[in-house]
Amino acid sequence: MASSSSLTISQAIVSRTTPNTSATNSSSDRLSLPKRFTFTFFSGLKTSPSSSSSHPSRFPSRRLSSKSRSVIRSAAVETLEKTDTALVEKSINTIRFLAIDAVEKANSGHPGLPMGCAPMGHILYDEVMRYNPKNPYWFNRDRFVLSAGHGCMLQYALLHLAGYDSVKEEDLKSFRQWGSKTPGHPENFETPGVEVTTGPLGQGIANAVGLALAEKHLAARFNKPDAEIVDHYTYAILGDGCQMEGVSNEACSLAGHWGLGKLIAFYDDNHISIDGDTEIAFTESVDTRFEGLGWHVIWVKNGNTGYDEIRAAIKEAKAVKDKPTLIKVTTTIGYGSPNKANSYSVHGSALGAKEVDATRKNLGWPYEPFHVPEDVKTHWSRHAPEGAALEAEWNAKFAEYEKKYKEDAVELKSIINGELPAGWEKALPTYTPESPADATRNLSQQCLNALAKVLPGFLGGSADLASSNMTLLKMFGDFQKDTPEERNLRFGVREHGMGAICNGIALHSPGVIPYCATFFVFTDYMRAAIRISALCEAGVIYVMTHDSIGLGEDGPTHQPIEHLASFRAMPNILMLRPADGNETAGAYKVAVLNRKRPSILALSRQKLPQLPGTSSEGTAKGGYVVSDNSSGNKPDVILMGTGSELEIVAKAADELRKEGKAVRVVSLVCWELFEEQSDAYKESVLPAAVTARVSIEAGSTFGWQKYVGSGGKAIGIDKFGASAPAGKIYKEYGITAEAVVAAAKSLS
Amino acid sequence: MASSSSLTISQAIVSRTTPNTSATNSSSDRLSLPKRFTFTFFSGLKTSPSSSSSHPSRFPSRRLSSKSRSVIRSAAVETLEKTDTALVEKSINTIRFLAIDAVEKANSGHPGLPMGCAPMGHILYDEVMRYNPKNPYWFNRDRFVLSAGHGCMLQYALLHLAGYDSVKEEDLKSFRQWGSKTPGHPENFETPGVEVTTGPLGQGIANAVGLALAEKHLAARFNKPDAEIVDHYTYAILGDGCQMEGVSNEACSLAGHWGLGKLIAFYDDNHISIDGDTEIAFTESVDTRFEGLGWHVIWVKNGNTGYDEIRAAIKEAKAVKDKPTLIKVTTTIGYGSPNKANSYSVHGSALGAKEVDATRKNLGWPYEPFHVPEDVKTHWSRHAPEGAALEAEWNAKFAEYEKKYKEDAVELKSIINGELPAGWEKALPTYTPESPADATRNLSQQCLNALAKVLPGFLGGSADLASSNMTLLKMFGDFQKDTPEERNLRFGVREHGMGAICNGIALHSPGVIPYCATFFVFTDYMRAAIRISALCEAGVIYVMTHDSIGLGEDGPTHQPIEHLASFRAMPNILMLRPADGNETAGAYKVAVLNRKRPSILALSRQKLPQLPGTSSEGTAKGGYVVSDNSSGNKPDVILMGTGSELEIVAKAADELRKEGKAVRVVSLVCWELFEEQSDAYKESVLPAAVTARVSIEAGSTFGWQKYVGSGGKAIGIDKFGASAPAGKIYKEYGITAEAVVAAAKSLS
Repeated sequence: MASSSSLTISQAIVSRTTPNTSATNSSSDRLSLPKRFTFTFFSGLKTSPSSSSSHPSRFPSRRLSSKSRSVIRSAAVETLEKTDTALVEKSINTIRFLAIDAVEKANSGHPGLPMGCAPMGHILYDEVMRYNPKNPYWFNRDRFVLSAGHGCMLQYALLHLAGYDSVKEEDLKSFRQWGSKTPGHPENFETPGVEVTTGPLGQGIANAVGLALAEKHLAARFNKPDAEIVDHYTYAILGDGCQMEGVSNEACSLAGHWGLGKLIAFYDDNHISIDGDTEIAFTESVDTRFEGLGWHVIWVKNGNTGYDEIRAAIKEAKAVKDKPTLIKVTTTIGYGSPNKANSYSVHGSALGAKEVDATRKNLGWPYEPFHVPEDVKTHWSRHAPEGAALEAEWNAKFAEYEKKYKEDAVELKSIINGELPAGWEKALPTYTPESPADATRNLSQQCLNALAKVLPGFLGGSADLASSNMTLLKMFGDFQKDTPEERNLRFGVREHGMGAICNGIALHSPGVIPYCATFFVFTDYMRAAIRISALCEAGVIYVMTHDSIGLGEDGPTHQPIEHLASFRAMPNILMLRPADGNETAGAYKVAVLNRKRPSILALSRQKLPQLPGTSSEGTAKGGYVVSDNSSGNKPDVILMGTGSELEIVAKAADELRKEGKAVRVVSLVCWELFEEQSDAYKESVLPAAVTARVSIEAGSTFGWQKYVGSGGKAIGIDKFGASAPAGKIYKEYGITAEAVVAAAKSLS
Repeated sequence: MASSSSLTISQAIVSRTTPNTSATNSSSDRLSLPKRFTFTFFSGLKTSPSSSSSHPSRFPSRRLSSKSRSVIRSAAVETLEKTDTALVEKSINTIRFLAIDAVEKANSGHPGLPMGCAPMGHILYDEVMRYNPKNPYWFNRDRFVLSAGHGCMLQYALLHLAGYDSVKEEDLKSFRQWGSKTPGHPENFETPGVEVTTGPLGQGIANAVGLALAEKHLAARFNKPDAEIVDHYTYAILGDGCQMEGVSNEACSLAGHWGLGKLIAFYDDNHISIDGDTEIAFTESVDTRFEGLGWHVIWVKNGNTGYDEIRAAIKEAKAVKDKPTLIKVTTTIGYGSPNKANSYSVHGSALGAKEVDATRKNLGWPYEPFHVPEDVKTHWSRHAPEGAALEAEWNAKFAEYEKKYKEDAVELKSIINGELPAGWEKALPTYTPESPADATRNLSQQCLNALAKVLPGFLGGSADLASSNMTLLKMFGDFQKDTPEERNLRFGVREHGMGAICNGIALHSPGVIPYCATFFVFTDYMRAAIRISALCEAGVIYVMTHDSIGLGEDGPTHQPIEHLASFRAMPNILMLRPADGNETAGAYKVAVLNRKRPSILALSRQKLPQLPGTSSEGTAKGGYVVSDNSSGNKPDVILMGTGSELEIVAKAADELRKEGKAVRVVSLVCWELFEEQSDAYKESVLPAAVTARVSIEAGSTFGWQKYVGSGGKAIGIDKFGASAPAGKIYKEYGITAEAVVAAAKSLS
């Protein structure tokens, strides 16, 4: 109880009270600071009355000893903007009941968080945030991320009240139903007004870090002393679950390092997760950890009814310009439900008709389901005109800016609308078979640097492997706290955070194109973020080097085997494995063009020759004929490969041709793109009549049966790698031209 | 510099000195506390001499302001056990040069960490740890984990000096070569004496948490007031990279929560990662974060030569019984190399002949490569007899224990030697078609509870989804700080940490069998740990529920699509998707028997009928005929499915049979096991002559071509899921009996 001694009594006593015991006749009395109160103990729902506020020992000692060791400043009571408190409470209860009613109708969903977070949600969307509900994509809007995505009814209720066309009453009524705009977790690709896709915990706050990074970067590049053209905040709400996930610690460590002062995160500290009280698995001091991460930390002890505390905390957070702020808001999950509040049972299930009734009574809510009281509706109705005015004002500012800063305006416009500069792709290098052999990771760096010159929104970096992944943009410095205008991002050894941050960067504006890098095998660390890229249509470019046993001595922990297959199986992502310079350039062209589909480039550590017959155009088709000495689309055998093994295939073809065989060499650089080609094209590359087919790839053979067919042979690696020089492993594992020749001879 | 004012001058001045400037003629002088010193600045290698120790301002202010905000107690100078300091230094330099020479010979590897961490390595293996080099598997040994696995030459050098037969001189000379016992990262399955497989950063410390958990659990269950039969420490060394990874924060949060007092982790605080100084991406206060996580934190400011500081820190750590300890040891990476120390260039490349020579001169090392001086050899030679004595003493103690505590001894022996109790599998439930329909997640809980009764080493839990994954063992309570004898583990929302902790638990002793659980889609969060399970032969059982679109309303963020395929492509892991009770029981039988291969069970949220024809025996074969109305192994059509879709297949078969077709229904519950069957068996299930084949699975069709062949049809889902009631999505996505019937008719 170290920290509470410095608090006012009212601040101390309202912490973690339940509402039903303070109920009186008027709803505004009921939800203002209670005159009498109870403390809720952590073992269950039972409450124990206490008649004196001077007994801090009645707080459970275990919780407080572990959670409150460092002295965190409680938010001072000060008001940002005053609205009639009764109306505020009515609005907050509207939010609560929209959530309750929608979950009840769906008989599925999570009412607990919206009921507990309705106050901070109301204050954010009604009093603090700047947005235009009629244009959810207005560039300079404040961004909001519900990292605790299961509480999406909070956001849907807020979007509805604010006047977004995406969430009308019928959408609330079809919550979690087929084809609705209100899916079970927030999805940016379904619901305009939702910035990112959340649900898998911890990633949302990392997305928010990416959004705040993008703002800081663009502001530093484009703002002028007389024109602050980029200027918005990023808000997030995260819960205990998000706090436990490692990805949030990674991203928040970077946010502190980068000093993202316009990132303000609300931690819904409700002490409940699905398995019960967080005491069973989560007793760390989040405050102390965030102080260690370099954040400004504020504790709002009464998140249930302490509206002025919440307002004051936001004001204080905005005043801290060099650090992100965590506002820990202690709330009661399911606030208002007399029998289920403060328990896991309200987390992820409908309350049930009986408890909904009891909650209506308890909170004094006489309305029908889904009803928005007129005065609440009227109050919120100002956001449409106000938002339009905000955007118009900004548009005027931008028109001014365009006149004064022509070149900057052109770049910024490209970032805002996502239109790539004409002829950008001409910047990509081309190669001939005489060009020197090189690792595709090095060829990749040539492409990255070429693109950075022509694409204004291109930026990125590596998870502490820049010099191995070859990802540094030579014309730019490091994006750091004091040099945010630069474009080399340094993620440290934080792959998952990196991916989730890049999703946030990509979704900030259509023309921002982030890339990020690590060893291909460590996609395993960030797979959850890569999947969200694919799902939420974030065109992140994943630069994944050291793509096979070809990395050599580092051994099986570092050698990808199943990774190509595992991404080929993932929807809406392009898995590209270029073989040389032209294919690498082609892969980048594909990646840049696919703004709603992420790309993964698997690149070699080892040198590879520039092969005759490879091309950027072929790469864009995913699969194509690299060389062929047959006629009439009827080779004796088709040899297929990708990446570093295309060289092996070419050598085997030479060998077989010397022996008089008609051999076709096919590069299958991107299966997803190949599958999208016409049947006629596919037949022209892989004629059905030719069943003598051999594939080789230094990875799992899983999936290759599709192309080699029942009559063919897939050469690959279906066990883990080994630590030894690359050439030795290739030989021992049979990834050789001899093996291809032997297989081809056995078939044809 | 807040914290240094309380230090002795010698403690303050030796922090982060480089060795070359303090060189005198005698090697013992050279490495004792330097009389003159320099401070190394962080921007590069340049050093700046300072004549006075009273100028703490010469420390770079940025580093110190961010790293030292909280006052961490520096280790008091006190000696655990005194060995002649000159000999200690000689031993430490032996370790350094064994690492330098091995990396040089391989021309590949990481010399920097071994050179910097040699002092703590020496003290651990020579003065502190209890082990028997001639029996690396002695049950009660102290465990050591090199979480910063790239520094494996440190561990190989220590194992070599300590007398382990696995690392002889020739093994050091074949570092990173084909077939050697000294691969590029530590691999428990290659090198006896290595406890776990590390390299992918952050996971090693989580493995250590698992090892320490296992010790605490077994000690609580089996120790008696007169017999402390389980009693060892777990030590780990982790670096900046490990600290940045989210998985380490997850695991360390749990270690603090669980109060794992016998876990002692050394944080090699060398300020260098691959991309350069950690200033560019890692400026958080690790000390403060770990205090927040509930750890005891000690700072050894001079890890290079402060041997007594290191010893005192270990003593202090051991005295703290209720918390794990982090000993932050500030070291110089590549200590001893005059031109490369304290730079990223020494992290991951051979020093080169010239710098090796310079380092030999600088550290006064006149010996040939790989030479161990006689006095060092003699000094270390005591560990073989001492270790044998330790084990003999423990064996005697156990013999005594066995007499007094017969039943406990039987259980403990089974845990130690991994022999499963006779007839254990009879505890698994069996079902008939008349048994009630149920979700396989519920049937799984019946199996888990049955197994917990008969397998003494069976324990596990969920990542905050126990009530959804159905993983609670009803006869046991929660493993918590004060109830470590219990077997339900509460991991919180920390999937990656959970997996890596379970790897540590599994590798503690052959008979410890951990299971862990989350939603199947969240294997993405823990994939890196699951891959290590497969690689390092840890037989963890992954209980993965909500295995398809069948989970319904939570939507695409929660619905696995590509996950079955992605694990089928992974080496050495069993991907099981049982269809009903008998298959679920069969899957558990397989999982328990496979102690060197992890298993993943994909289980349904939704109810499924008990199907006629399913069996535990069939499940063990991976694929088998469930029903057939054909004769002569020549059905008209073969219908295949797994898990929840086997019911759909059965329905489709009924339909087709009504129309007079000869239809075979095949369950392909585990592809890996099916592939291991004889060709004759496989032909008996899937006769090559029958090309009319249809598969259905509520997931990616990727890979199914292998079984349906060029003439067949694979029905599945090659896009993301949707938020809606399960039945609706199944219908809209065409995962129906009608679709199977139509496909079958189109083929046969």
